[in-house]
Formats: sequence, structure tokens, C-alpha cells
Amino acid sequence: MKVALAQFNPIVGDIRGNVTRMADFIARAKTARADIVVFGELSVVGYPPRDLLKKEGFVADSVAAVNELAESCEGITAIVGFVRPTPDTSGRPLQNAAAVLAGGRVESIHVKTLLPTYDVFDETRYFEPGDRPGCIEVDGRRIGLSICEDLWDADALGRELYGRDPIAMLADDGAEMIINMSASPYEQGKAKTREDLFTRQAARCGLPILYVNQVGGNDELVFDGTSCAISPAGQIIARAKGFTEDLLEVDAGGGPQRIEELGGELPRLSAALKLGLKDYVRKCGFSSVVLGSSGGIDSAVVAALAADAIGPENVYSLAMPSRYSSDHSLSDAAALAENLGIHYKVIPIEPMHAAYEGAFEGLLTGGNLDIANENIQARIRGALVMAVSNAFGHLPLATGNKSELSTGYCTLYGDMCGGLAPIGDVLKTVVYDLAEQLNAEVGSDRIPRSIITKAPSAELKPDQFDHDKLPPYPLLDEVISRYIEGDKTARQIIDEGFDADIVDRAVRMVDANEYKRQQAASVIKVTTRAFGAGRRMPIAQRYVQGD
Amino acid sequence: MKVALAQFNPIVGDIRGNVTRMADFIARAKTARADIVVFGELSVVGYPPRDLLKKEGFVADSVAAVNELAESCEGITAIVGFVRPTPDTSGRPLQNAAAVLAGGRVESIHVKTLLPTYDVFDETRYFEPGDRPGCIEVDGRRIGLSICEDLWDADALGRELYGRDPIAMLADDGAEMIINMSASPYEQGKAKTREDLFTRQAARCGLPILYVNQVGGNDELVFDGTSCAISPAGQIIARAKGFTEDLLEVDAGGGPQRIEELGGELPRLSAALKLGLKDYVRKCGFSSVVLGSSGGIDSAVVAALAADAIGPENVYSLAMPSRYSSDHSLSDAAALAENLGIHYKVIPIEPMHAAYEGAFEGLLTGGNLDIANENIQARIRGALVMAVSNAFGHLPLATGNKSELSTGYCTLYGDMCGGLAPIGDVLKTVVYDLAEQLNAEVGSDRIPRSIITKAPSAELKPDQFDHDKLPPYPLLDEVISRYIEGDKTARQIIDEGFDADIVDRAVRMVDANEYKRQQAASVIKVTTRAFGAGRRMPIAQRYVQGD
Repeated sequence: MKVALAQFNPIVGDIRGNVTRMADFIARAKTARADIVVFGELSVVGYPPRDLLKKEGFVADSVAAVNELAESCEGITAIVGFVRPTPDTSGRPLQNAAAVLAGGRVESIHVKTLLPTYDVFDETRYFEPGDRPGCIEVDGRRIGLSICEDLWDADALGRELYGRDPIAMLADDGAEMIINMSASPYEQGKAKTREDLFTRQAARCGLPILYVNQVGGNDELVFDGTSCAISPAGQIIARAKGFTEDLLEVDAGGGPQRIEELGGELPRLSAALKLGLKDYVRKCGFSSVVLGSSGGIDSAVVAALAADAIGPENVYSLAMPSRYSSDHSLSDAAALAENLGIHYKVIPIEPMHAAYEGAFEGLLTGGNLDIANENIQARIRGALVMAVSNAFGHLPLATGNKSELSTGYCTLYGDMCGGLAPIGDVLKTVVYDLAEQLNAEVGSDRIPRSIITKAPSAELKPDQFDHDKLPPYPLLDEVISRYIEGDKTARQIIDEGFDADIVDRAVRMVDANEYKRQQAASVIKVTTRAFGAGRRMPIAQRYVQGD
Repeated sequence: MKVALAQFNPIVGDIRGNVTRMADFIARAKTARADIVVFGELSVVGYPPRDLLKKEGFVADSVAAVNELAESCEGITAIVGFVRPTPDTSGRPLQNAAAVLAGGRVESIHVKTLLPTYDVFDETRYFEPGDRPGCIEVDGRRIGLSICEDLWDADALGRELYGRDPIAMLADDGAEMIINMSASPYEQGKAKTREDLFTRQAARCGLPILYVNQVGGNDELVFDGTSCAISPAGQIIARAKGFTEDLLEVDAGGGPQRIEELGGELPRLSAALKLGLKDYVRKCGFSSVVLGSSGGIDSAVVAALAADAIGPENVYSLAMPSRYSSDHSLSDAAALAENLGIHYKVIPIEPMHAAYEGAFEGLLTGGNLDIANENIQARIRGALVMAVSNAFGHLPLATGNKSELSTGYCTLYGDMCGGLAPIGDVLKTVVYDLAEQLNAEVGSDRIPRSIITKAPSAELKPDQFDHDKLPPYPLLDEVISRYIEGDKTARQIIDEGFDADIVDRAVRMVDANEYKRQQAASVIKVTTRAFGAGRRMPIAQRYVQGD
């Protein structure tokens, strides 16, 4: 039996467009003589649809689209993800479901059993779970259907959250293989986590697992694809490409078939950020981006990612030197643009800076001028980037990294301006790794070495360096990662051997700058805990552990 | 039996401070010879704690605080809300619970049964529900304990969401009265919704209901208090004050006791916004605010709210005229400041405006200059407000209303700058009502009549009026309210008799401006659907109904 895993990149809410492209996948699977073609979770509407689900028309359109797709399913069984009204009058009003389409009609519908509510997931906001997953019969073979979380077990989740075991239910129900329809976002290290899980589950139930994942960027999330099939012995027998659409044909009972390489963590990170950037630009209806290019590492990495993602001819960089800018800032920004082949313009900010200083004379007398004077330079630059965006329709990119966003070492309405923050979930130390990766990908120092080696500086006053205000990045990043991604308390981090002063200072900075992050652009999530929907902190709060 | 309802204003995460002030409430209840004193939901930690709950130390501190509070409970029974680890090793790791404290110890613990996951509520993100609510015995009386959502029935929720009926369980269990510990946020019209619900529930179970609500502003939410007691016959027998702390003593079996007036909808809206503003400022550690004062109705209403909320001496208004500003803008802003007794400064933006224009000459040639030229003025003003905030430590207020935020008739990083948008959930037509209300409260036209009567204009180019780009506000607001608060589709709104062109245009504007709202300041929620945690829309999406 041949199963085609349709690794599809939907646009959220573009039901018409999604269905058209899904029909094309179905036709390709038929041509390849597949018996079954399977799509990812909620493929008809795109994952995550979020509060679009609350619109009555949305759910009706989802159901209508599935009925329409069914008509093209003659000579093949297609399994698609969609949302439907809960048939019962009690419980939450919607269900996250799979429709089995064959013989030109909807043969059966199966409902997701386990609904995640952690990190970026809000599924109980919308959905009523099914009681148990179900099996379908295709050409005499019994196939167990599961949707994403249904396959995640207590080991993977760190705790028995749901008190139900859908995979065991499917095995008990006589399944000969398990299909899992997913929309599982990329995170560093997650490919391995997933394949470990599949191996464990395949071994536990003694069945092959066929896993099909969504691919593509949707707002802050990047779905990495890498759909795969695992034998009961835990062997990967097929794997689709990462970070691009693919149609993977699998003989579930066969030996090794097409197995694409996973690739290393850094290449995958680079690919994830490019896909997230490209899809955000495209799915928002833009074709070009604009960013401030300071001559520093962060804007250089964002510029290189953008050039690769949407083509250098669609990337506009602005160097906006001030009276405090070093010569190397301008020459490095110019060399970067030259190397990448992106557009480049120089606009000195001195005239605006001088005008604001004049206004400050009457306005700020007696106040603390230091922060105001530093921030105004970042805000002039932000306003110029936005003006170019307004005039030419380029999407503005914010270039800040996670270390800055964590500590508030960035200016709200200044360098934080932009529709997307491509490296907002990348710690500073990893930004350097990424720069090396981006250079290695083309075999040249397209990000000039001088940008990589110089000491980081915001250049908002004379002789200013990041290390004046922040702990050294290698240390700071370790603390941030434990505090934010690890949810550890300051006390716990200190107990792990970190300097108490540094930990307390870092943690205070993180807590005090929640208000900035609340107004930040979408960050492309690449870790277990990014700023955004996966981290929901109150602003007006005063928690100090053990106080 | 005398029960004291402790209508308490906690600070989220300030466990130490909350416990100290709760001990004071307990002492006052003892002095008043109450048998029982009851606090609101999660009173020890403040509602909503959001992802602070994920910190290990936080939950441990919550439990420790309850043990400490218990020690002061001699001669009285105190019932407090807190978070605790789930005793089982399965299910979600935390529980939203009530602790019954008496005789110097924790006598029993009761767990919330129904967990809301709609609107701003995310309770299944954190909590495992209890199987059923429980009764306690105090002085031979059997009392049923419920927490917030436990009391909300299918009628109030519009659907049988949970398949369980905690109030019927308590009645079956022999309860002689029902206590409900809530953190129920204010919305226009909700006081009546709640009291209708309590009346229905009291009648259904034939028992008195004692309802204690949190009070105070926490980020976007304002808790209105108005705790109350209802007889089995559905009569309000006691009601606490709205929008302030109170200790309401109730004899559950008695007749009418202290019954504070609810007040009309507009006075309540005014009070809600003032409390939300005051608590945001205070709980974030500020004591003063700064805002741009344009001479228009929105900034006038925000200034008046702020003056009442934190004292006029703590309100700093900036008039920032441009070459397009009318004379009346300045004179109205000045008169407003004079009437309110707030600080007032005039800073013409021309020097910065001219400097940007110079920069635009090389930068924007060939682009669409109109939007860039309009937005830059708003961004100069935003930068000046932020400079004053940076220099003097005032919290900046954004003055935009819900009609503007809905349609995107506002400038990101311009007039949207600020830590809080006090009227961001108030439609323009209601802003006018609020102006009249604020004047009526003091019996004078402190918001000058000329501000109320002139045609709204952003004054970003000559002879510009809101009605050039937007449908008339009375019509626009009707459409917005159906689309956003009512979750209706454009089709449904047109079918209700609205002009198709206007509806389609309004809906397109709402959808296209999601990215601006994602980066907006916290909005004080006063309707069933505010921008913020209660509305989660994807940005990169293309849903068009029935497309």
C-alpha cells in the first residue's frame, strides 16, 4: 500500500487557495499511483487559524471546502484536516477534525483527542476533543488516524497531561499502521525530539507511524515539514525535505525509501528563519523589505537572511549615521550591501537630531537627558525606516536579537520598529554562529569579518559598548536561556553556579521590560520559549521570588 | 451567621503585600464579629497571574503565604483564593483553589471545577479542574464553595460548555448557602448580566448566594467589585461599592442590608476607566503620566480621566502644533489644561518636520509621499512624548479610541505611542458620551464645548477631516461593534440592513490593520471584545467569507 504524505504550505484563512493547491497535491498523488494521500492538521484552513475560528462563516466555509474537495477524490483516498461544528449541543462549539474523502464523497470524520494548551497552543479555546481516535479501512488495510498531539506521550510532554492514550486505543482497535496529521512548529532540537518520540511510540504499539507535518511560516511560527515514516523497529524508512513543500511516497511495510537529510542544527536554524521571513512577507502581501543597517552584526544577519529569503533585489538597507557613528559602521554597512547585492542608501540623522535637541531645550530642562538623548536617535532611525516603508510599500524589519529584547537593551518605537523581528528569538551568541553559517552557505565572507569581530555597540553616545551596561553576552545568554526558556527562578540559576549579582541584574532587566516586548513586532519562534503567544506575562506585577 | 465579603484589590505577584493587606481585612472582619470572611479568586497572588504561574517559586510562595495567613485565623474562618500544585501526578500541574483557614491552620482546600477558556481567559493553560465543588461546615451551617466560573450556567454562557453543574452538586450535597469567589472583569452591561445570573441560580437551587469579586485594574482588565448577596427569592439583600475596596457584612438569612447603588452605565464606564488607569500607573510603579493634547475630543477625555484618576498635578499635557494645526487646536488644548489644572506645554514640531522633509527629498523620491508626510508628524509627536517620559519618568498615555484602532486610522509609533491606551476599547461615539459624563460629574464644561462640537480631524494635512476617509462615526461604530464584539461576518451585517459598501470597507480596514493593533499599548477592556488577550487574530491571513 502506497501512502503519499502531502507536506503542504497553506495560507491561514485562504480556504479557496488552499483547496485549489490541495487538489493539485491529490492529482499528483494519483499520478504517482498512491492509494492514500494525507495532509497536515487543519490543512484546509491553515494552522493556526486562531480567532478566525470564531467567525461563523469561517467554519461553514471550511466544511464546504471539504465537500468540494471530496468530489475530486475518485480512485484515491484523501485525508484532510479541517474544522467543523461540534455535532453535540454541549461542549465547545468546534472540533479539530480529519475528513476521509473517497469515491467522490466524505466517507468519515475523525476528531482530535488531545488538545494542547501550553506554549503557543490554545486549542481548548475553540475545540471540543473527541472521545477516542478511530481507524479507517482502505483496500482491506486498517489504519489508525491521529492528529498531532494525539501522538505525544507523557515522556515527551514531561507529564501525563490528559489521562488518555489515543495511540494505545488505535492499536487495541486493530490498526496496522498509525497516520499522524500534524502542524508541529520548528524549534531548535525539535526534529530529534520528534523522531525520538515516533521511535518510542512505534516500538510501544508495534506499528509503523506515518507522520505528515505542515510546512511554512505563519506569523511567529515556522513549520518545518520533515514529514517521515518510522518502522515498528524504530527505523526511519522515509523522510521528506525540510522547510519546503514535498510529496513523500511511502510504502509503510517496506524498507528504507527516500530519506532526505535532516541537516545540522545551524543550517536548520538558518533555513527556518529564511522560510519564516519569506512567508511572512509573502503571506502579508508584500514583496520587499526595508531595514536599518548599522554596520553591526544583528542588522547584517537580518539583511543576509532577507537577501536569501526574498532575493537581494527586494531588500532595501538604510545606513543612518549620527554624530556618534564610527567610520567603520558606514564602511561595514556599505560592504555588506555590496556583498549581498541589496539596495543601500545613506541618510545622516544629524538634521533631525539637531532639531530635536532644540526642542528638548525647553522641554526636558531638569530631567534626565541621557536616556532621552540616546533614544531619540533610535527613534529618528525608526521613523526614517517607516517613512521608506510608507512611501514604497516595503515591509519594515526589526533587527533586534533575543538578548536585547530580554534585557530591554533596545528602543521602543526606535530600533524595535518593524512588522517582523526575524532574529528576535535568537540570542546574541547564536547570532554570531548564524553569521558564520550564512557565510559558510555561500563560501565567502559576505558578512564582512570586521562586522563579526568588532565589539558590539549601539553608538548612541561616544565610546559606548554593550558591555558597559550588560553582562558579557556568553554569560548573559546562559542566564536568559535558563530564566526564559527554562522557567527557572533566579535562585535556581544562582544555585547552578552563576554569579548572584549578574543573575539578579539580568532577571530584573527581563522583568522590567515586559512592556517593551508587549509592543514588539512578531518574533520568529525558534526556541522552546519565544516572546509572543507562547509567553504571557502580566506587566503591572511585582513578583519577587521568596520575597 | 455573619459573612464578611472582602472585596480586595491585590497586586499580581505581590504575594507578600497581598497577604499583609488580607490579614488587615481579616482583622477588620473579626472586629466586626463576622463568623466568616471570604476573599476573591486567587486573592493571594492576584488575578490573572498568567505565566508567572509557570515559575516554580511562584506556586511555592503562594502555598507558603496561605499557611502563614492561616496562623492569623483564630476566632474566625477565612476563605482565600490561591494556586497550588495538583496533588495527582497526572493532569495539568496546578489548581485554582480556595483554602479554608480556621483555628490557626488550613482546614480544607477546594478546587475550581469549571475553567473558562474564552475571551481573555486561559485557565486550562495552567489548571487541572476539580471533579466537584465541596461544602464546608462552619458553626453547624453547611456552606457550598464555588469559584467564579463554577456559578456560570449554560444560559449565561450561551451553551452548555462543560457538561457539569457544580451549583446543583452543592445543593445536592446539602448546602444551605452558596459562596462564590470571583475575579470577574468589568464590561459595559455586565453588572446586570451577573445579577440576573445570580438571581436565576439562587432560584434554581433555592439557596442564598454570596458573591465576592476582586476589585482593581490589572493590565487590560478592570475588576469592578460590586460584590453582593442574593436571597433564594432572587432579591439583592446586600451590595458592596463598585470600583473600590470594601468589606461587606452579610447576614445570609436576613432581609435587605447595606445595598450600594450600582449607578448608570456611563458613570460606571467612567469609574472603570479611571480605576484601570490609576491602578496601571500605580501598579507599574509610576506616579505621573504624559500625553499629547491635540485639542481634540480623545486626548481631552483621556486627560480628564487621568486628572481624576491620579490627580491633575500628576498629569503632563503637551500641545505639539504643526503647520497644519488650527488655532482652535491650541486654544482648546490650553483651555482644557486650565480647566483640569493639569500641566501644559507647547512644543511646535516644525523644526523636526522641516528636518525630516529635507531627509525625505533624497530618500523618498518616486514614492508615495502622502502617507509618509502625514505619519511623520504623528511620529515626531510620539517621539516628543516619549522623550518627556524618558526624562521625567512619566508613564506615556496613548489617546486613541476603538474606532481608530479598528480601522487603523492612527499612526503606529506615532499617536499609538504609550504604555496604556485608556480609551482604546471605547468607540468614538461613546467617547462623546464619556466627555459629557466627565463634565456632568463636576457640573461644568471642563472639557470645553468647542472640543465636543467640532468635526474630528487629525490635522496632518490642510482641511483634513476624519469623515474624508472614514464612514460617519455613528454608522462606522455600529458596524465595528457587530464585527468585533458580535463576531458577525460582513454578510450578516449587510443582511441586518447596513450599506454593503460601507460594511465591506469597514471590515477590510479592520482586517488590514491587525499588525498595528498587535503592537498597540494595553487597552482597558470595557466591552465584550477588546483588542488584547481576548482577541487573537493571525496577521498573515487571507480569509474572505465565502470567497
